[in-house]
This record gives sequence, structure tokens and C-alpha cells, in this order.
Amino acid sequence: MTAAWPPATPGFGVDHLPYGVFESGGSARVGVRIGDHVLDLAPVLHDEVFAAGSLNPFLARGRTAWQATRARLRELLAADDAGSRAVVEPHLIPLDQVTLRLPIEVADYVDFYASIDHASNVGRMFRPDQEPLKANWRHLPVGYHGRAGTVVVSGTPIRRPYGQLREGVFGPSEKLDFEAELAFVVGAGTAPGTPAGPFDEHVFGVTLLNDWSARDIQNWEYVPLGPFLGKSFATSISPWVTPLEALEGARIDGRPQDPAPLPYLARTAKWGLDLTLAVAINGRVVSRPPYAGMYWTPDQMLAHLTVNGASLRTGDLYASGTVSGPDDPGCLLELGWNGTRPGVPFLQDGDIVTITASTRDGISLGEVTGGVRAATLG
Amino acid sequence: MTAAWPPATPGFGVDHLPYGVFESGGSARVGVRIGDHVLDLAPVLHDEVFAAGSLNPFLARGRTAWQATRARLRELLAADDAGSRAVVEPHLIPLDQVTLRLPIEVADYVDFYASIDHASNVGRMFRPDQEPLKANWRHLPVGYHGRAGTVVVSGTPIRRPYGQLREGVFGPSEKLDFEAELAFVVGAGTAPGTPAGPFDEHVFGVTLLNDWSARDIQNWEYVPLGPFLGKSFATSISPWVTPLEALEGARIDGRPQDPAPLPYLARTAKWGLDLTLAVAINGRVVSRPPYAGMYWTPDQMLAHLTVNGASLRTGDLYASGTVSGPDDPGCLLELGWNGTRPGVPFLQDGDIVTITASTRDGISLGEVTGGVRAATLG
Repeated sequence: MTAAWPPATPGFGVDHLPYGVFESGGSARVGVRIGDHVLDLAPVLHDEVFAAGSLNPFLARGRTAWQATRARLRELLAADDAGSRAVVEPHLIPLDQVTLRLPIEVADYVDFYASIDHASNVGRMFRPDQEPLKANWRHLPVGYHGRAGTVVVSGTPIRRPYGQLREGVFGPSEKLDFEAELAFVVGAGTAPGTPAGPFDEHVFGVTLLNDWSARDIQNWEYVPLGPFLGKSFATSISPWVTPLEALEGARIDGRPQDPAPLPYLARTAKWGLDLTLAVAINGRVVSRPPYAGMYWTPDQMLAHLTVNGASLRTGDLYASGTVSGPDDPGCLLELGWNGTRPGVPFLQDGDIVTITASTRDGISLGEVTGGVRAATLG
Repeated sequence: MTAAWPPATPGFGVDHLPYGVFESGGSARVGVRIGDHVLDLAPVLHDEVFAAGSLNPFLARGRTAWQATRARLRELLAADDAGSRAVVEPHLIPLDQVTLRLPIEVADYVDFYASIDHASNVGRMFRPDQEPLKANWRHLPVGYHGRAGTVVVSGTPIRRPYGQLREGVFGPSEKLDFEAELAFVVGAGTAPGTPAGPFDEHVFGVTLLNDWSARDIQNWEYVPLGPFLGKSFATSISPWVTPLEALEGARIDGRPQDPAPLPYLARTAKWGLDLTLAVAINGRVVSRPPYAGMYWTPDQMLAHLTVNGASLRTGDLYASGTVSGPDDPGCLLELGWNGTRPGVPFLQDGDIVTITASTRDGISLGEVTGGVRAATLG
């Protein structure tokens, strides 16, 4: 072959190698993305764990196995000798010849609220007569459980939900929104009663998430037990899960916290992430939220999630909440100030929302995208 | 044999036949309870769907199959001829020779808040300066998603959770509570975007649930996104799922509602249930909450849960919320008025909580029980 080797495109070189599940020839299997190809892992690595329809069996093996697999793949793909190429090339499939599926079987899904800019703005809009942040917000990463069964892969059409929009009014949501988020995929679980150990012992990697939200339904329903139908109709994630190792160069100190968090929330390693998201509506970028400014880091979220003894399972997914910077909000609620800013309406039928993210050293998290379909009942 | 046939004990005759999963001889299988025995269904019915470690594969078959199986079992167990007894008897195992397991693989778990007495009392305690019921409460069944991965079978010890009890204070919960609830098991799912059809087309049956709650953790964390760590450490359910058919005699009109609910929440069949719960702490009954007085009926909960197009999956579990009557509350928060009534403390280490329920015509839902263990970290 005379083409460049390995067949990398920007963002998806041998330093990245995100995992996903692809369908080709009638079966779903695990692969890694390299350039605009997917490498079919089961035949390359002679390991049936990759012949599954989700990453979960591989994730359940734990960090030592994840590292060994990654090292072997980097070795195979970086070597430009004929032997390595002969192993790899027959199992490289162009992306346009496969269908990408939901990469994980989601066990429990939790959504946090970790951006101080987002939480403050929402407080100002929904509770204008009160302090924007509730008393607990700086003391713990506020979060809630969402609906695992309605997590869908990027590209799945999103139907505008029906619901109660306010007292006595039922109809299609008039305030459909996106939320640009980062999500963390749990590989290695815990036994009941045992708080999680180090973040990278449990968390396999990172994916992009769009927490579709119907603001009218949410605002009417959410007291006192939190968001429910305003969120549960759909949550989209990227088909690719980026292993933590690929984000090594993006690790930074977390944002300073005041007051200092309780000891169980103390940061013992750098798990701030210097990633910049971009949100486009119908191809036009409307915001570039910086992940670096998030108040709570993902290791703190994991520590909080499990400090009460709640067990983790392989396939648990937890998300950051909307990523917003002071000038770069991650949702239309903030961008349009709840529909009051001219020219910044909530989502219209037919709109396509695409969220991407990348590190300074050029790792791309790919994209999570979805188009809005008109509401129908049944 | 000279013993009475079938081998029924009160509450568990041929009119009941709840389903569960039992372990015996090294494998987990599906059975129905008859008296103090479990009938091993796979060999009796020659159907491998019952050789599974959860009810889910059977539940996925849908109502026609559920009815046919129930009819066949009633026929076999009611017939007192030698032929039927010869089919059944070799596969009846005394309950004290088996270990009962979690009957279902829980997909998504939702908890409602359907008792007007409970919601009003909680409002009075937690928000004394406001109307007890929030503006939305009479318009929709308020609910939230809980943690599916920490649903455990009756008998599992419950460890007192650690957590943030109030600003700056970390320790074992000082306000550990139970909540006596009825829960509904979804058998037949729905496609995304399609609200559920009739209640009994989707819901297979009913089980007892204890939504263990740490009131101090919950009260500090729950604004604005709802309960999280105050609930997520454990939720217990009975090992037995009672099919809806066994509750035919307990069906009553739901409690009158004012205002009339929106059309999608209209009751089209009688799904109020005349069941009386009993809660015992260390063997002493402390309350007998009546299910008949619940404001929202389970068919309304299902209609609400899916009206936004959220799909249902086999194994979805949704609970009623605490069952409280005006004089018979279903939790210690109300019984002891948040720890202020002398002699009604929150749960102590070593306490055993047992919840039972029965219909007027003598169907018993069995029990969900759990003992409180002291807090330990890790």
C-alpha cells in the first residue's frame, strides 16, 4: 500500500483510539476508531470479548486489561512493518461502511450540575427572588438519576415531547433545549457498601452527551423531587468512548473551590480537563463552552456518588451537567435567557444540534448529534 | 400423600401464585409460591424461559403468555387427580430449602409520591412557611428516577449510609427511615416515542418495596434536583411478584380527584387497590397504611411516565411513594414528626423493619424485610 500509515485523520490518530460498537455484515462488534476507519478488534486481537454488541464485557475486565489492550493496539498501529500491517489491514473498515451503535449498555445514568456558571444562571432565571446558588451547591456536587433506558446513540432522531407545560396546559414542548455535557463511563464496579477507589480505577473513559431538555415541562414538574419527564424522553451520547489515557495531555488542576470541600471530596490527582466544546445548530457554531472552568471535577463526582455505599456497575454513566463558561453557555436556556433574547429561540422542528469537543493537543471527542422531529402522540 | 392438596397456607393459595426466583442445587430458577413451597416451573412446564435467573425473559413475552401460564398452573394445582399431582409434586420444594433472590433484573426504577397525606405531611415539615402541597401536585403524579443498581431483595442487610448531614457535617445518617410502598413491575415494554397502552397490557404485577431513606442527607441535598444519596444506598423489594390477576378482587375506584386530571391521565378502568399494609419494627406493628386512599392510581402513574415518549423496558419498576393514611403513616418521618415525638426515634442499628400487605379476600403480598447494620466506611 502506498497510503500514509497509519490511516489517521486529525483528532483520531494512534494517540487517541476511542472505542465504539459498529454493525457490519449483520453483526455488532467492538472496534477502535483510527482516522476514518474502524478496526475490528475481535479478529485482530483474537479475543471474543470484542465480538459483543456493547463495550460492557471488555469494560468489566478493569484497568490492567484496558491498558494492556491499548498498548497492544498502539504497537500494532504505530509499527510500519509489513507484519503489523498484514495483521491490521484486513480488519480496517471505512466508517462509511458501518453503522455505529450505542457503545455501552447503560446501567444507571446520573447527571450532575457541576458548572457554577450554568447553575447560577439557571437559579437567576427560575428563582429570581433568591440567591442564584442554593446553600448546598458549593458543598457537594448536586446530581440526580436520569432514565438509562432512553440513552440513545448520536444520530438518533429526537421527537419533541408532549407534556404538561404549565397548570392545565398539555401539548408539545414549546421550550425544547439541548445541554452540552461530558459524560464518564464506569468500567469497574464496586461492591455494595464500599465507596469507590481512585477515579481511574473505575472510570474507563469519556464521551459527549446531549441532555435534551423540555424547559416548560421541567419547570412545572421539578419541585420537590427534581427533573423527570422534562429530561427522560431522550439523552444522546457519542458513539465513541475516549479512554482516559488519551486525555493524559488535557489533565489540569481543577478550579479552586471555596469553601474547601469535605475530606471525602478532596482532590488527590489532577482530574480537571482542558477540553473545549463546540455547539452547532444547523451547522452554525453558537457557543464554545470551556470544560476547564467546571467547579466540580469528575473524581469528586464519583466520590460523592458512592460515599453512601451505593454500588457502581459496569456501564454506569454519569454526566457533568451543562458545560457553561461565563461567556459560552452550553444550552439555549442560557443563550436566549429563557426565550427572552431576540433571535435566540428554543429548538425548532428540523433543527440539528451537533456537539463536539477537542483538547489543545488535538484529540477530538468526535460528535454527538441529533435532529428534532415534530411531536406526535403514539 | 395424605396432606391437604394443594399445599396452601393462608395468603398463598391457588388464587394467588406469585412469581419469584429461587436458588436451589446451585442454580437460580423461576418458581411460583404455593403455600410454603415453591414450584419449580421449568421442569413442570417444560419451558426453558423459567430456567433463568430472573423473571425478565418470561415477562418479556407479554400478557397473553402470562395468562396462559397462570391458567395452566391453576389447572395443575387445583386438580386433585393423581395425574396432576404426579406432575407437580416432584417439583415442589419447601421454602426453607431455597434461597430467594431478586426476582427481576431492574431496568429503570422510578419512585412516585402518590399519597396526598404523605406529601402534605412532608411539606408541612420541610417547608413550614409554605402551602404543604406544591402547585403541581394535584395536576400530575410527581416522581423521580432512583438507582436501579441498588435495588435488593428482602432480607439483604441495610448498612446505615454516610453522607453530608447538613452544612459542613459528614457522618453516618442520624435520621435513617423506611418508606412502605407498593411497586409495579413492567413486563411488556414500548417503542420510543409511543406512550404506553392500557395498564394491564404493560404491567405484570405488584411487589412490596421499602424505599430506605436518610432524611438528613436528603433534606440537605434535595434542592433543586431532588433526592439522590439520601435514597440511592438501598431499596428493598419482596422476593415475590403478585400477578395483577390475583388482585382482581381488590380492584376499586381510585380516590376522587379535584381538579379533574388532564385527559391523558383519565382513569379508564378501576385500578385503585384495596390493600392494607402493615409495618413492623422488631416485630411490633407501628402502622397499618391503607393503599385505597392513594390519590394517584398506578395506571395514571404509567400514563404520566410515558406521555413524553419515554420508552418502557421489561424489568422497569415504579413505586407508589410512601403509602400513608391520615392516621397510618408509612414512614418514621411522619410517625415521629421528624424526630420530635417522644418514643418514636428514627431507625437504630439492629432494628429490623418488615412490611407486609394483604387484600380483604386474603391474598398476601408476602413481606419485604431488612435489618439495619452499623455504618462503616469501606
